[in-house]
Amino acid sequence: MEWKNMTELSAFDALKALRNRVSLKDRMSGAEGAERVEKYRAPMGGGLTYHYAAKQVDEAVLDALQALADQAQLTEKYQALLNGEVINTGEKRRVLHQLTRGQQGAPVIADGVDKRAFYVGEQQKAAKFAQDVHAGRIVNEQGETFTTAVQIGIGGSDLGPRAMYLALEGWARAEGCFKMQARFISNVDPDDAAAVLGGIDVSRALFVLVSKSGTTLETLTNEAFVKDALTRAGLDPAKHMVAVTSETSPLASSSDYLAAFFMDDYIGGRYSSTSCVGGVILSLAFGPDVFARFLNGAAEEDALARNADVRKNAAMLDALIGVYERNVQGYPCTAVLPYSQALSRFPAHLQQLDMESNGKSVNRFGAPVDYPTGPVIFGEPGTNGQHSFYQLLHQGTDIVPMQFVGFRQNQLRTDVNIQGSTSQQKLCANLAAQIMAFACGKQDENPNKSFAGGRPSSVIIGERVTPEALGALLAHFENKVMFQGFVWNLNSFDQEGVQLGKVLAKRVLAHDTDGALKAFSDLMDI
Amino acid sequence: MEWKNMTELSAFDALKALRNRVSLKDRMSGAEGAERVEKYRAPMGGGLTYHYAAKQVDEAVLDALQALADQAQLTEKYQALLNGEVINTGEKRRVLHQLTRGQQGAPVIADGVDKRAFYVGEQQKAAKFAQDVHAGRIVNEQGETFTTAVQIGIGGSDLGPRAMYLALEGWARAEGCFKMQARFISNVDPDDAAAVLGGIDVSRALFVLVSKSGTTLETLTNEAFVKDALTRAGLDPAKHMVAVTSETSPLASSSDYLAAFFMDDYIGGRYSSTSCVGGVILSLAFGPDVFARFLNGAAEEDALARNADVRKNAAMLDALIGVYERNVQGYPCTAVLPYSQALSRFPAHLQQLDMESNGKSVNRFGAPVDYPTGPVIFGEPGTNGQHSFYQLLHQGTDIVPMQFVGFRQNQLRTDVNIQGSTSQQKLCANLAAQIMAFACGKQDENPNKSFAGGRPSSVIIGERVTPEALGALLAHFENKVMFQGFVWNLNSFDQEGVQLGKVLAKRVLAHDTDGALKAFSDLMDI
Repeated sequence: MEWKNMTELSAFDALKALRNRVSLKDRMSGAEGAERVEKYRAPMGGGLTYHYAAKQVDEAVLDALQALADQAQLTEKYQALLNGEVINTGEKRRVLHQLTRGQQGAPVIADGVDKRAFYVGEQQKAAKFAQDVHAGRIVNEQGETFTTAVQIGIGGSDLGPRAMYLALEGWARAEGCFKMQARFISNVDPDDAAAVLGGIDVSRALFVLVSKSGTTLETLTNEAFVKDALTRAGLDPAKHMVAVTSETSPLASSSDYLAAFFMDDYIGGRYSSTSCVGGVILSLAFGPDVFARFLNGAAEEDALARNADVRKNAAMLDALIGVYERNVQGYPCTAVLPYSQALSRFPAHLQQLDMESNGKSVNRFGAPVDYPTGPVIFGEPGTNGQHSFYQLLHQGTDIVPMQFVGFRQNQLRTDVNIQGSTSQQKLCANLAAQIMAFACGKQDENPNKSFAGGRPSSVIIGERVTPEALGALLAHFENKVMFQGFVWNLNSFDQEGVQLGKVLAKRVLAHDTDGALKAFSDLMDI
Repeated sequence: MEWKNMTELSAFDALKALRNRVSLKDRMSGAEGAERVEKYRAPMGGGLTYHYAAKQVDEAVLDALQALADQAQLTEKYQALLNGEVINTGEKRRVLHQLTRGQQGAPVIADGVDKRAFYVGEQQKAAKFAQDVHAGRIVNEQGETFTTAVQIGIGGSDLGPRAMYLALEGWARAEGCFKMQARFISNVDPDDAAAVLGGIDVSRALFVLVSKSGTTLETLTNEAFVKDALTRAGLDPAKHMVAVTSETSPLASSSDYLAAFFMDDYIGGRYSSTSCVGGVILSLAFGPDVFARFLNGAAEEDALARNADVRKNAAMLDALIGVYERNVQGYPCTAVLPYSQALSRFPAHLQQLDMESNGKSVNRFGAPVDYPTGPVIFGEPGTNGQHSFYQLLHQGTDIVPMQFVGFRQNQLRTDVNIQGSTSQQKLCANLAAQIMAFACGKQDENPNKSFAGGRPSSVIIGERVTPEALGALLAHFENKVMFQGFVWNLNSFDQEGVQLGKVLAKRVLAHDTDGALKAFSDLMDI
């Protein structure tokens, strides 16, 4: 297995020669367009399908992407990761988030422990705890059941679990498996915690403190804020709080918590939704069976990602098309556009997942790379985006590749029929229409009403946002980001770029500043 | 007054010659850095100040920006707009949103009406209506007061008012002027409306239907969804609903509504937060006095934007620095990063405001432009973003200019002191630290831990998110976008790019499709 920069691979040179090869406007018109929709699809987990007919590919581009995948040894590297090799070389760590949802490689023994057994054991602890809460075996000091779970965490301990909770809340209510509401406190802005606490009955709230190191300043500050509020309400914080942390953290054996659930250094924050970081809060909210179904969807997707054939490996193909768009076509951004209100915060999670993993300028050996890496990721749910920033996507001077997601059915079973169609049909019709409007555009006598077309998009289509579909969707993007990192020869699993700000903030708070930093601190009255 | 493309102006050529002139790393270090912080600031409305020390400017660049402002006649064009000239030339309309908050120019008589008087009259109607609701003079069929206001709208009828509501909710609670909670339904996904209705007492909810034309399909669909729910609950929809629309719309004189409030074609959706589109819901939520204070902050900012001196006109300078970054430095995106949880949806509003206004490829006469126009806008509140996508902002291969916003005090009066500082101090310390980390970076033996610096940011600093500060902040960005549109010679006030998708969606729903559009429609089971 060799780790080479992308520009050292002859397959990349071959791909570069295919710049602007496919005119979407031509290829997506008429009978050929329909044939492409039929042909250009790849299976995913959870009943999803990845459709790439409206991407700028044809057989020649796909062959070139296959050659790049082969030369960059993408599936070999993935298998090495699954087998527990030290892929996070900067921090000298294995990368084991896939192991939380299945055993796709050899057994991984680390620190004298079988890691799959460790993760499953923690899942079982979380499941039992959630069941005890639901059954009223774990209650507040007045003997009342808990009705709200509040996650306190930031970054990966917040965005992923929050997005997953919002994605399944409606489904769980419709299916009768909704157990208790969840809320999230993340920002060190004290108004965040105050607003959350103001909206719940704290006497019946269970707080889930999430910090791997046990030293994240924002999270510890918010914990103190919550403990203060509990104490002032005459409640014992230790009876209202559990910790999700590493076994070596100061939180692990503290009597301040009802229980502690463990993760480890082999799972980065942004990849931790399927670990206890997501597991505790989602099991509390929806029950452990729902969380298990979510893991199954992710495991199914992880297995499909092992296929060396790009045409049958949606995550790898999505990654390679992204490389083509970023490094051959030169597009700097990607929009993520789910046509489902349940996925309202999914783009924010992907923004972290992608930009924190691949927003880097040095390769895994610390040498500068001479090509653009991770793009800017942004998005909002359709149809809202259509009435907002889609103007630029349709008629702006830059081309922004798009990643749509859509479902045939809504989550809740309520709908209305207006002007001959349901809301869900209108939603789906808009999605289909947008793909074609972007691809083919439309000429008009009035140049202001003309659409150039040629704006590439893919779409992931499923039946409904179920736990399995959501797990597969999450794993798809995690694996896409991983494959792109392999192509770009990055370490996608560290985040050194977040450190400098922390160091300087501590200096500001210690009044150990001069020059412009002191001047800005003075302006902020610190 | 002449409307010329940017590349026809000699001042732009002069600006281009100043590419990469300022090394932030050098200029922001030591005593010079502190001097820049002192010197490079401009006053704004609402007690805010715009700081641009960490932007890539010096006296030479500022002089060049002044020359470009003069040649492009920016303040003359603004004054013409204020005087009611037809600036939205494509749709042959005046542009009058500033008139909702003050009379900065000559009286504007249109359709035989003084438009300032018209807008003020509608504000007074909305104020009286809100007071009647608050006082229990307008009640539900059981004689109970209304406790929730629900806005039904999409795009500009949703994002701006929603962001403003969230921005002032905590402040209003802390100041004792919180009147009733507001909720928002926008997405045609039926799960959006169902979730909102499931979380409120519909018998005590007042719905504010917002559609200028009275024909927005998503909004009418959601109205039908709500009416259906009200009827099934044994309630009379006409007793629970008001309309915000144009006087010529089918909704204007319908007996389906308790009351109707009017706007007109001279205010685009994304500029309508200070019209009745924002006025009705914000007056209901916080009382008309708070809404009036919000307008005053915007008016103050509008007045400052008339100053022809770029160093004293924050909105114009912000716009010009953005042009320098986009067209001289070649940066494709801009991040908006408010260090205030209250501004959690402000970036989503700015995303629409900016990208829908200036995401265009033809100038105001319909001729293609030969330079990049509106950038991609994205953002999340700090400190959350720091633990997410800031990795790319610090160490990614592309430079992303940043727009920070911060306040010395939080909104609610609750805080905790941990490790010697309050949460609010930690928040402010992080903001100051980030600006300097981005500007100056840091060398490290380990290239993975090195920060190149040279990443430009501005920061708007205020005392607290008050109605006045929020109004000024909103108007600042509206005026910034307007000035950029003037420089780029665009019509920033139409949005033809959203039309094609609507036309194709109707064809899908009518089953009038073939080729790839039919194939995608079949995949979605329409």
